[in-house]
Amino acid sequence: MRIAIYPGSFDPLTLGHLDIVERSSKIFDKLIVAVMVNPHKNPLFTEDERKELIREAVKHLPNVAVDSFPGLLVNYAERQGATVIIKGLRFVSDFESELQMAALNRQMNDRAETLFMPTSQKHSYLSSSIVKEIARHGGPVGDLVPAHVETAMRAKYEMMS
Amino acid sequence: MRIAIYPGSFDPLTLGHLDIVERSSKIFDKLIVAVMVNPHKNPLFTEDERKELIREAVKHLPNVAVDSFPGLLVNYAERQGATVIIKGLRFVSDFESELQMAALNRQMNDRAETLFMPTSQKHSYLSSSIVKEIARHGGPVGDLVPAHVETAMRAKYEMMS
Amino acid sequence: MRIAIYPGSFDPLTLGHLDIVERSSKIFDKLIVAVMVNPHKNPLFTEDERKELIREAVKHLPNVAVDSFPGLLVNYAERQGATVIIKGLRFVSDFESELQMAALNRQMNDRAETLFMPTSQKHSYLSSSIVKEIARHGGPVGDLVPAHVETAMRAKYEMMS
Amino acid sequence: MRIAIYPGSFDPLTLGHLDIVERSSKIFDKLIVAVMVNPHKNPLFTEDERKELIREAVKHLPNVAVDSFPGLLVNYAERQGATVIIKGLRFVSDFESELQMAALNRQMNDRAETLFMPTSQKHSYLSSSIVKEIARHGGPVGDLVPAHVETAMRAKYEMMS
Amino acid sequence: MRIAIYPGSFDPLTLGHLDIVERSSKIFDKLIVAVMVNPHKNPLFTEDERKELIREAVKHLPNVAVDSFPGLLVNYAERQGATVIIKGLRFVSDFESELQMAALNRQMNDRAETLFMPTSQKHSYLSSSIVKEIARHGGPVGDLVPAHVETAMRAKYEMMS
Amino acid sequence: MRIAIYPGSFDPLTLGHLDIVERSSKIFDKLIVAVMVNPHKNPLFTEDERKELIREAVKHLPNVAVDSFPGLLVNYAERQGATVIIKGLRFVSDFESELQMAALNRQMNDRAETLFMPTSQKHSYLSSSIVKEIARHGGPVGDLVPAHVETAMRAKYEMMS
Repeated sequence: MRIAIYPGSFDPLTLGHLDIVERSSKIFDKLIVAVMVNPHKNPLFTEDERKELIREAVKHLPNVAVDSFPGLLVNYAERQGATVIIKGLRFVSDFESELQMAALNRQMNDRAETLFMPTSQKHSYLSSSIVKEIARHGGPVGDLVPAHVETAMRAKYEMMS
Repeated sequence: MRIAIYPGSFDPLTLGHLDIVERSSKIFDKLIVAVMVNPHKNPLFTEDERKELIREAVKHLPNVAVDSFPGLLVNYAERQGATVIIKGLRFVSDFESELQMAALNRQMNDRAETLFMPTSQKHSYLSSSIVKEIARHGGPVGDLVPAHVETAMRAKYEMMS
Repeated sequence: MRIAIYPGSFDPLTLGHLDIVERSSKIFDKLIVAVMVNPHKNPLFTEDERKELIREAVKHLPNVAVDSFPGLLVNYAERQGATVIIKGLRFVSDFESELQMAALNRQMNDRAETLFMPTSQKHSYLSSSIVKEIARHGGPVGDLVPAHVETAMRAKYEMMS
Repeated sequence: MRIAIYPGSFDPLTLGHLDIVERSSKIFDKLIVAVMVNPHKNPLFTEDERKELIREAVKHLPNVAVDSFPGLLVNYAERQGATVIIKGLRFVSDFESELQMAALNRQMNDRAETLFMPTSQKHSYLSSSIVKEIARHGGPVGDLVPAHVETAMRAKYEMMS
Repeated sequence: MRIAIYPGSFDPLTLGHLDIVERSSKIFDKLIVAVMVNPHKNPLFTEDERKELIREAVKHLPNVAVDSFPGLLVNYAERQGATVIIKGLRFVSDFESELQMAALNRQMNDRAETLFMPTSQKHSYLSSSIVKEIARHGGPVGDLVPAHVETAMRAKYEMMS
Repeated sequence: MRIAIYPGSFDPLTLGHLDIVERSSKIFDKLIVAVMVNPHKNPLFTEDERKELIREAVKHLPNVAVDSFPGLLVNYAERQGATVIIKGLRFVSDFESELQMAALNRQMNDRAETLFMPTSQKHSYLSSSIVKEIARHGGPVGDLVPAHVETAMRAKYEMMS
């Protein structure tokens, strides 16, 4: 069985992320969407909220699991028996730091290969930060995130204001 | 069964190409190394010679086949039942034209996804053209291509001079 | 009256070009789509055919004219009284050579400013060369060029084969 | 009447910004230099100081107005009746995030087009942050900002030390 | 005598830095490895610790000195009589900001030229931040930094946890 | 004695090239400007003409020699006892192929290091090809090349027309 991991902050999941999940899940036997937990960052959604928002979005995909992990991705991949790490690629500026991480990860664990999947044209300008920036100012995010994520974002920003 | 295609000119196969073949062949059930035939280019090696040089290099990999095709990659992928197209990525300058081709190919055939595999650090400066440039001037290519490809290149350039 | 020039080879006009024309024509009083004639290139369509294909595509835009010119763009801009040169931008790789041309053109004629308009997301992978490559192999170009351009391309390639 | 907006932090205005203002003001009927107010950033100059420094620098340009706004640029553009957003482009690294913002802004408000104007050669290494970094260490900034901005910066840094 | 400066944060020195030091020291009569002191950053190692770790690593190179400085690099270069500033280049994303700094430094002090030396292939994914990220999670850094730096890092992170 | 080589096609020498020569000649004991001879290219000026145009331009620099060579740069560097290869860097797009060549050259001859010198701001849009393109159309090149090179270009293009 070929297991792939799609790691990220997912704070929150966008339609760009979901597109990568749907397309990757057809290529591998099992896909784990894995929330990376970074105690030094101050996310909008908690670890559990982020997993819950992803689970709701991928429930139509039987071979997709949702999880989270602290620490190094390569160690997590090893524990899960994963041989592939999937990263979405939108831009040249993504590309170099991703290439750097991929080289480093391979040096630490050469049983897991990083593969890059290009983001769909229509989602190539999307990122979680930009979605949060728009929502924070009350702008429209209905075309950028799943409906239940939009609802959750509105609730968060209302609580804050 | 998951079939992946690794397309290229392979004029000739370098150690960088071979590294992508070896690593990809572990991820998919079958990998087809496919020589793209372009009647408008003037290659050093003929279509048959290029396939033969690849076959010699991959004979230790039981799930790797070698083939060639004219025309559009997406049509070839469809005929082979392939759902993945593998491309090696070395540089930012590769990246944009590859992303463009991947977007276009997906628009013509959305049953095949293009996945990018980063070239190993030590092969990231390698390309068939640069290897030919060095060999043409009698420079050393033993660290850049398999031994039997080096022999074939020497023979070609001796014939020409 | 503010006159802008949109220069290019337009061999042939794509839907990406047409999108730039339509959006630019709203910003300036007059837009001249200007076919650059390069005697050292071997185009698929003649100078007159290219102008005719553009004229057909822009006939719904009253403030758009179609023209062609040999020699230097800055001289042509001066003769037309144009103060703006519009260039579409798709990619980082476009960007640097365009920036270089813009700097040089400004040094030769500082009465005309080059302004860059980003290509629409859905056309960002389009180029005349890639459209010709697909059409030459009999692939589908109906989503990439206007209908009458597709017809003209089919006719050309049938004549050649 | 064609109204263009030139948005930015302008903390403070540099000679590179001023060059874009002067060149843009010749192309459009009215140009609004608009200070974007971000409550999450900690600027060197207050919103009012930044506007005042710009006003002093552009007082020779009759069709240039100076303003500030909180929230989303697209909403501000709509309220001002602007159809063009002008951004200066210096570098490839600017380019991608600007292209991303332009695509997103167009999705939210397709009545305003973003146009990019290349920075003049001699100002291409300038940025507000780099000017502040130099001034903070007592280095020379007379070739980088207008004279009254230099004076204002010296005053700020003296107050701090 | 030709004096070159190799400036950086060196928090801490990696094998990539050391490779630049070794190769540069062969080209110039004297090489000063100079720790830039930035009071606004919060480094892992103190100024003195960083210098000590570098000194240990370069003690086999007789023409290499280790120093630190506050303020502007160009002023420091002038005080040292240095005519060359050496910077390592790994990536395109390094390249533009380095080019910007080099242009600015030359404008402030045209007696010192910045020269870029490409990082060795095998170290091109290395950076002090990425080494700290791995060490913080207990990952292996023995291939990334000199042995005595690894020991010092372990000690730091143990003290913190 | 430290010998550096500045290799290039120099077809013809521009003010950008000359700027690199002047700045490099201050850093090394001897600088050889070396015309690379490529029998597969069709230059505007012959090998001898190119050397003559360079000699005229550098006659005020006593430690600069002018030469030409066929074949591989690394072999030529070895024969000259050079330990440094100087390349000018203008753009990101230059950067990657230059980095690739530098890595390959170092693998073939690790006694010669490639160092990159950033082109001066005001020459960063210059290239021999763009100068030829302008001169071919009768455009002004007086700000782009030395006066005697301009004269030589005019003579060439008059002979051709």
